[in-house]
Amino acid sequence: MSANPQLDRQGRLQHLLTIDGLPAAIILQILDRARAFHTAGADSRKLPIMAGQSVFNLFFEASTRTRTTFEIAAKRLSADVINLNVAASSQSKGETLLDTVDNLSAMHADMFVVRHAESGAAHMIARHVAPGIHVVNAGDGRHAHPTQALLDMYTIRHFKGAFENLRVAIVGDVTHSRVARSQIHALTTLKVPEVRVIGPKTLLPRDVETLGVHVYHDMREGLRDVDVVIMLRLQNERMQGALLPSREEYFKYYGLTPEKLALARPDAIVMHPGPMNRGVEIDSAVADGAQSVILSQVTFGIFVRMAAMATLAENTR
Amino acid sequence: MSANPQLDRQGRLQHLLTIDGLPAAIILQILDRARAFHTAGADSRKLPIMAGQSVFNLFFEASTRTRTTFEIAAKRLSADVINLNVAASSQSKGETLLDTVDNLSAMHADMFVVRHAESGAAHMIARHVAPGIHVVNAGDGRHAHPTQALLDMYTIRHFKGAFENLRVAIVGDVTHSRVARSQIHALTTLKVPEVRVIGPKTLLPRDVETLGVHVYHDMREGLRDVDVVIMLRLQNERMQGALLPSREEYFKYYGLTPEKLALARPDAIVMHPGPMNRGVEIDSAVADGAQSVILSQVTFGIFVRMAAMATLAENTR
Amino acid sequence: MSANPQLDRQGRLQHLLTIDGLPAAIILQILDRARAFHTAGADSRKLPIMAGQSVFNLFFEASTRTRTTFEIAAKRLSADVINLNVAASSQSKGETLLDTVDNLSAMHADMFVVRHAESGAAHMIARHVAPGIHVVNAGDGRHAHPTQALLDMYTIRHFKGAFENLRVAIVGDVTHSRVARSQIHALTTLKVPEVRVIGPKTLLPRDVETLGVHVYHDMREGLRDVDVVIMLRLQNERMQGALLPSREEYFKYYGLTPEKLALARPDAIVMHPGPMNRGVEIDSAVADGAQSVILSQVTFGIFVRMAAMATLAENTR
Repeated sequence: MSANPQLDRQGRLQHLLTIDGLPAAIILQILDRARAFHTAGADSRKLPIMAGQSVFNLFFEASTRTRTTFEIAAKRLSADVINLNVAASSQSKGETLLDTVDNLSAMHADMFVVRHAESGAAHMIARHVAPGIHVVNAGDGRHAHPTQALLDMYTIRHFKGAFENLRVAIVGDVTHSRVARSQIHALTTLKVPEVRVIGPKTLLPRDVETLGVHVYHDMREGLRDVDVVIMLRLQNERMQGALLPSREEYFKYYGLTPEKLALARPDAIVMHPGPMNRGVEIDSAVADGAQSVILSQVTFGIFVRMAAMATLAENTR
Repeated sequence: MSANPQLDRQGRLQHLLTIDGLPAAIILQILDRARAFHTAGADSRKLPIMAGQSVFNLFFEASTRTRTTFEIAAKRLSADVINLNVAASSQSKGETLLDTVDNLSAMHADMFVVRHAESGAAHMIARHVAPGIHVVNAGDGRHAHPTQALLDMYTIRHFKGAFENLRVAIVGDVTHSRVARSQIHALTTLKVPEVRVIGPKTLLPRDVETLGVHVYHDMREGLRDVDVVIMLRLQNERMQGALLPSREEYFKYYGLTPEKLALARPDAIVMHPGPMNRGVEIDSAVADGAQSVILSQVTFGIFVRMAAMATLAENTR
Repeated sequence: MSANPQLDRQGRLQHLLTIDGLPAAIILQILDRARAFHTAGADSRKLPIMAGQSVFNLFFEASTRTRTTFEIAAKRLSADVINLNVAASSQSKGETLLDTVDNLSAMHADMFVVRHAESGAAHMIARHVAPGIHVVNAGDGRHAHPTQALLDMYTIRHFKGAFENLRVAIVGDVTHSRVARSQIHALTTLKVPEVRVIGPKTLLPRDVETLGVHVYHDMREGLRDVDVVIMLRLQNERMQGALLPSREEYFKYYGLTPEKLALARPDAIVMHPGPMNRGVEIDSAVADGAQSVILSQVTFGIFVRMAAMATLAENTR
């Protein structure tokens, strides 16, 4: 394995674990492939690319929505998909994570899609599996959620054409968000000149500026003249803790309303990884409004996941 | 959308939500199609009709049996099937029903099979989805269960040939039964001349006669000379309430025994939507007897669901 | 049905319920078929043998690992697979086991893979289903787990070439192990000249010698000069009871360590049906060591299950 655990010696993608350190060329390769699937329309509903291959959805943390998007993407590539909710199975029999992975590998798994509450789980599995078996990180702890970031980049490119002249704002709980971390890496790798993060001090990492972003605590300031507004989901569990006063107060200061959105550029788009807390981080008038591209993100997510899986599958040979 | 939310302007079926208001011609079209699948035998085990299409089993209420019949039917039409137990997923994250539907639609769902504890849920989803996405109601509250009624009509036609000279009795808890409501609409639409409902006053709706049925509280009277006996399942939860004295007493008055069945025509058939409570609404001697067609109903249910799904899928174009 | 409930009158396999009474010729036929799949490599990843057929994984007892191996095997034979966790569904509605089976049969099930906590469940289902429907026992109570034994025989044959000159030791909780029972029947049927069982008196059946095995309570004696060591999983629930002193003490006397393994032949292989309790019945140095073939067992398990299912499916005609 090369220095970058995601690439082989020829620099080809073997695992998709994190956006951090992923070359721009590979990101763009996946986005281009996704666009080809998108353009093909109904012709991309059943492709033989992964026929006879087995994809294991290895979810140590429940996420029906994410699991479903990978399941659909894999089935459109003609793979056999096996869903494993691992919390409910062998882990309870005292088997270790790596024993589980070894066993599934021995059943001729071709690809693992891994969701885990602990940061680094997908990396650990990728280091462990035999060559030719691919690992896709579908979210690990607070660390990374690379396919979400890739579909967000696809969405921005689709609506804005290019990355080089944009101002992008990410709003909300950056500290606890693997999505935000992956988005920031993707945006900076793709040379977006101005990335802003907006949120209360309690929800922004102390050293976030070292990632190359500008920090705003006042949402009205932060949104001014941006081309893209990415809202983050406020986890329910945060709202009970000491980090936040109340849902109402959060909405007042950091909820995206039509009035706050008016400060951005008139053609700014609004994104959200879902599921939304309407009335907490986003007003329904914005979520369902003309500038929202939230459902397009979901659609593009299928094409991007197909593209990532197809790229990995083809890099075996 | 036309006045009938199930049909498009050309009068073609776009959603299967309820039998109420469904033209006889469409019911018969589905029954004919089901017969074609039935006659084809093993040749109907894998048909390309829905190849490349995605069917979402969206079950907000658990029902392994019903979900399985739709899963089998869809797979025989070569669709990709995604099972979603929604109670356990996004609803718990505070997402609204329509947000869930929007998200799945954005993943290019072609068809939703919806089961929900609340009456009207499937209608609400059908009103909401984009044109070209079809909704099948797999049971909503006490309202409707149209594919069950269609398979019952298929069963009656199969064993009795025609609908025009029949006496049909529906026995049991009509008040709480979406199945009974759909059956009554189907039987009257198909011009069955005499439909009877039999049950204690506490389990029959007050205004049930307005549906065009004859009411009997005495099962021996009600069964006299009928051609078809349809037993309803007595929900366990009813048996604990004030509506019924005891399981034993219910069986005594409204359980179908060989002795009571002897009052019907000698060639009468016995139907039940399953799962049966043996010894409560039906005696095992009848359930497993020569006049029982209960397992045939299950078999026909696959063909009828294939027919309904194929009809919807073909009406997109 | 002939005297042997697994065979039809022509002596062809119709159900795979237990190794007890299965002719050596049929065991070897399945092993040969598995070898053909194994040798075919990637060409056996998608075969049309069961296209258009429906396999029901009917698991009354949860076992994600076993269910997954059957699901993969069936999908590689192009069957449609329906997973049913029956504990959570119709059983809770008061339906009997045989009603459930009747209903699924009526949906045109071609094969049932059955896991049940009670011994004899798979036999009961096999006696009940119509001709042409096949039943595979995926573990019933303490009784049998025939596909596990078959894959163990495949593993032994693969590494040792022939059965006729071997010494095989089975170590651990034989009393509660359906795996051990099936292994002993398979080994004796295949004429392995010396089969040993090793364990404390509390975990060996009183009459185990009537099965044709030699009993050892001292592991060091029992392992001497054996060619194959099969470790059994110690169920967690046993460790709390009165049968065993402690995990530590069990490991001391019956855990397989490098030092104890050194008493076996130098080329002895180590097997385990999984999931392993590392540090209880087996030391990690052995589990991951050069003599361990535990992951090969998993791989071979797919081929053996494909072979068993293909054999059954072809015996319908």
